[in-house]
Amino acid sequence: MSTTSTALRTHTCGELNAGDIGRTVTLCGWMDVKRNHGGVIFINLRDLYGVTQIVVGPESPVFKAAEELKSEFVLRVTGRVSARPGANANKNMPTGEIEVVAETLEILNASQPLPFELSEHAGVNEDTRLRYRYLDLRMPRIARNLVLRSRLANVVRAYLNSLGFNEIETPVLTRSTPEGARDFVVPARGAPGSFYALPQSPQVFKQLLMVSGMDRYFQLARNFRDEDLRADRQPEHTQIDLEMSFVTEADVAAVVEGMMKEVFDRTGEKIETPFPEMEYEDVMLRYGSDKPDLRFSLEIKDCSSIFADSGFKVFRGALDAGGVVRGIKGEGGAAYSRGEIDKLTELLKKNGAKGLVWLKFKDGKFDSPTLKFLDEAELSGLRTLYSLGEGDILFICAGERSATARHMGMVRNELIARLKPAAVKKWAFLWVRHFPLLEKDPDSGHWTFTHNPFTAPLPEELRKLDTDPGGVRSCQYDLVLNGVELGSGSVRNHSRAVQEKIFGLMGYSPNEIQRRFGMIVNALDFGAPPHGGIGIGFDRLIGIICGTDSIRDVIAFPKTTSGACLMTDAPSRLDDRQLKELHLRIDDVKSEG
Amino acid sequence: MSTTSTALRTHTCGELNAGDIGRTVTLCGWMDVKRNHGGVIFINLRDLYGVTQIVVGPESPVFKAAEELKSEFVLRVTGRVSARPGANANKNMPTGEIEVVAETLEILNASQPLPFELSEHAGVNEDTRLRYRYLDLRMPRIARNLVLRSRLANVVRAYLNSLGFNEIETPVLTRSTPEGARDFVVPARGAPGSFYALPQSPQVFKQLLMVSGMDRYFQLARNFRDEDLRADRQPEHTQIDLEMSFVTEADVAAVVEGMMKEVFDRTGEKIETPFPEMEYEDVMLRYGSDKPDLRFSLEIKDCSSIFADSGFKVFRGALDAGGVVRGIKGEGGAAYSRGEIDKLTELLKKNGAKGLVWLKFKDGKFDSPTLKFLDEAELSGLRTLYSLGEGDILFICAGERSATARHMGMVRNELIARLKPAAVKKWAFLWVRHFPLLEKDPDSGHWTFTHNPFTAPLPEELRKLDTDPGGVRSCQYDLVLNGVELGSGSVRNHSRAVQEKIFGLMGYSPNEIQRRFGMIVNALDFGAPPHGGIGIGFDRLIGIICGTDSIRDVIAFPKTTSGACLMTDAPSRLDDRQLKELHLRIDDVKSEG
Repeated sequence: MSTTSTALRTHTCGELNAGDIGRTVTLCGWMDVKRNHGGVIFINLRDLYGVTQIVVGPESPVFKAAEELKSEFVLRVTGRVSARPGANANKNMPTGEIEVVAETLEILNASQPLPFELSEHAGVNEDTRLRYRYLDLRMPRIARNLVLRSRLANVVRAYLNSLGFNEIETPVLTRSTPEGARDFVVPARGAPGSFYALPQSPQVFKQLLMVSGMDRYFQLARNFRDEDLRADRQPEHTQIDLEMSFVTEADVAAVVEGMMKEVFDRTGEKIETPFPEMEYEDVMLRYGSDKPDLRFSLEIKDCSSIFADSGFKVFRGALDAGGVVRGIKGEGGAAYSRGEIDKLTELLKKNGAKGLVWLKFKDGKFDSPTLKFLDEAELSGLRTLYSLGEGDILFICAGERSATARHMGMVRNELIARLKPAAVKKWAFLWVRHFPLLEKDPDSGHWTFTHNPFTAPLPEELRKLDTDPGGVRSCQYDLVLNGVELGSGSVRNHSRAVQEKIFGLMGYSPNEIQRRFGMIVNALDFGAPPHGGIGIGFDRLIGIICGTDSIRDVIAFPKTTSGACLMTDAPSRLDDRQLKELHLRIDDVKSEG
Repeated sequence: MSTTSTALRTHTCGELNAGDIGRTVTLCGWMDVKRNHGGVIFINLRDLYGVTQIVVGPESPVFKAAEELKSEFVLRVTGRVSARPGANANKNMPTGEIEVVAETLEILNASQPLPFELSEHAGVNEDTRLRYRYLDLRMPRIARNLVLRSRLANVVRAYLNSLGFNEIETPVLTRSTPEGARDFVVPARGAPGSFYALPQSPQVFKQLLMVSGMDRYFQLARNFRDEDLRADRQPEHTQIDLEMSFVTEADVAAVVEGMMKEVFDRTGEKIETPFPEMEYEDVMLRYGSDKPDLRFSLEIKDCSSIFADSGFKVFRGALDAGGVVRGIKGEGGAAYSRGEIDKLTELLKKNGAKGLVWLKFKDGKFDSPTLKFLDEAELSGLRTLYSLGEGDILFICAGERSATARHMGMVRNELIARLKPAAVKKWAFLWVRHFPLLEKDPDSGHWTFTHNPFTAPLPEELRKLDTDPGGVRSCQYDLVLNGVELGSGSVRNHSRAVQEKIFGLMGYSPNEIQRRFGMIVNALDFGAPPHGGIGIGFDRLIGIICGTDSIRDVIAFPKTTSGACLMTDAPSRLDDRQLKELHLRIDDVKSEG
């Protein structure tokens, strides 16, 4: 008997096979398809687990009932399992060898015609699908994603439990935490004028759990960010959040690598551990991004030395100003049209580049509007450095070091998208390590954290906090998979003095530090252990594994990019009584009735 | 090597034993206690897993460092595991046979003196403990609760997964659901004047998941209710929430019973399944409560028949008005003082009782101020009906049927608290079934749901909806454990017509039904399967298992009964910029700066 059998059914629609022939069974499910073949009615009865063919012969007492069934009616059918006649067997479906000859047929519920056809190919727009999400979820693709998500959550939990982690629930109604994004807030009725904030992450709580000695914490935690949304963001998302005491970066990395191995194993995919790791500086130089897609081997190379004495003012000028000249080859890119190159140039210019130099290598020679500015030695230097071959293209940018890195990263992404080079691996994990601890906030002129205000500096660079704060590297590490930033973590400051010094560099006075970060700073005074952790985007991970571009495909009830739930019509208006209870008035908004 | 070992330590403080003697180990932890015995320093090094004794002899190179250690300093100690001299071995602790002779000792962090002593017996008030919750959690009792909670969450998940349930996350930012309590709301910045609501439960979503065909859903879900709090409530709590398609009440009950068996097994407790079940009517008659504590056998009995022709106006009057007379015996209750009885009478009167009759049976005869109103036959009838023996007390109430049931239930609770009768079982589970579907709302005069607006009527009583709505019993079931309502569930309406009829009885016009419940009512039109489920209070369950009266003891970062988090100072004020972004103004509240 199936684990999912209940009094209303003996089996699901996905489990009967030749071994069951002769048994009397009861199935429940939805009428998927009905065909009438010469007086014999065939019904595809569908549930989450599969489809079983039901047969109703012309002499059957339920023939008349079967004739009147419509799509998506909910049925309960009792009958005998029979072999399908050889020619009719369907080897492609698990239940394809059998059919159930109906003896009784009960309509558990009728259905109106659905507002759209349950087919991936019906071309229904996403708004309609989201409005009727409960019908959209009948499509196997999305339902399968949710089932896989549930299973992989189990894998994560089982793995972390096996390493002694405890899952500890942290509050959803809490206080603003200093994590950069905007908080969602909740008016507190009992304290008019005061608000809870929804957590952007359990960061502060998990650090306090380490101070409390809980040693190894994890949580599949819901995080909330009131951001202007993009395709791959939701106002709430789920994070595999973990924190460990008495660890180094390597300890956290090993836990994460082991977890990913288990997760991918469960989906039948083999991945290699340990994951490659790169210094932030190095990854920016070679890939122009802190989340490069290393499924592809394209690499940026610095060609500054070729142009040290160049007559080409654009390059020479950049170098003289302390900048760099860098290029990247696109194999087979000579097919780029002028229009495509103009578009790419436009994109770079919008992002602050001065321009984009390109050289095609075709018919044994260079082709480029820049050709006239370059001499033979330079051209041959480029050809050697980038191993340019017939039909390739070379893109070059010159300018300030870090801006040029970013610009070349954009070119790299464009080359991957346009030229579709062969992937050298299916799953390209990468640790990016040692991000700068601080960067200058262009508005305030103060230093600000690059990732997380609680990240520790590299111990050996601690003293540089006094002399060269921008040059201090941190114990911050990002986990990248196929060009997506999957997770971000660090070893934290467990020293109050260091944490306060960093807040000081960020421009906070001692009073402000107490007011804004007092709880965590004070906690460091009572025996805080060395600790570190990471948060890994669970929706994103499942999205990548399911091969979808949109995390909406792996969330049961997602919101649109404008933060609306089309199914429930959230957010919605409150009535006056509710507003009054909360002591709130709506300002500057026209009443909509 | 331990699963929790990391580069900073080879073992935890809870795992070394005689088998490790001779090994060189590195431990990390907190200095719990330090004793100096004739020049030898003994340190109890503590972590989540246990305590290990560290020894520093007078010749040790780290002796000086050890002398200066203070409580709660965070240490890293390397040394050799040695046997404790026979007399010093401590059989009561897992590491009691060994000690670690320190060779190196590193202070990973210092600690200021703690604001309170880490002892259950220190008598610290709860506010102080909550303000420094991260220190409070260093006390083994609370930390153990959290570890057990994590383990039992795993048991629940593993069990439900084994039955084919998928854990599906439902939104936290959603729309108001009609569940009786007040919603927490979240202003939507992108839609000024509109608000999300935090879910009081995933009720609507899980029903929609059944409509979508997800078949078996569960979630350890966070629920939010903006209620005036009581000792056992929190503004957010966790619920084991589940829903199943194609089921009857018995199917849901079997799943829950199997789950509880696994949970209690894991804590070393045996419970019996199936759980006893009682009709709501019957449980009210016999125990005067829909969540009776059946660890105790005390039972209310109806004695109306004894007083059918009574000369005692109080009883006779109640019976003539269609009411009842009911009594309950307290064994050994003759010791009740007049003052105690007066207090109980007061409580009942405050709850609408006309009074409380009591009769003690002492020295072979009755003692009661009511004695003069009762004749011999009545007294002897009572003695027989209630099996009154020497030293017992009998409490009797008369009045309207359901009010009298409630009053007698209060007396029963009081008798249990005062007389502390022997428990007949340690874990008294009970299913209370077939609650009335509807009750009259005293304010509006309309019918309203007793538990859940989506609960189905008993199929055989469906027709009574037209003639006697108050008499219709429902497919609603509550799970009670030791007098606590642990869970509440039902088989739902999957028929749109029935659901609409019930909303109609509640006084909603067709337009209002569409406006308030349109989504779920419409969903029932597209092939909704029969389905049912339950929500079980996870905090409460863990609280009962941990033997605590307060669910704050099983929540990492709980709020006070006024909804404040003393540790983070949530809720707190927003700054003007935030209010402006949300188009909100605070009304009627004096600015507090």
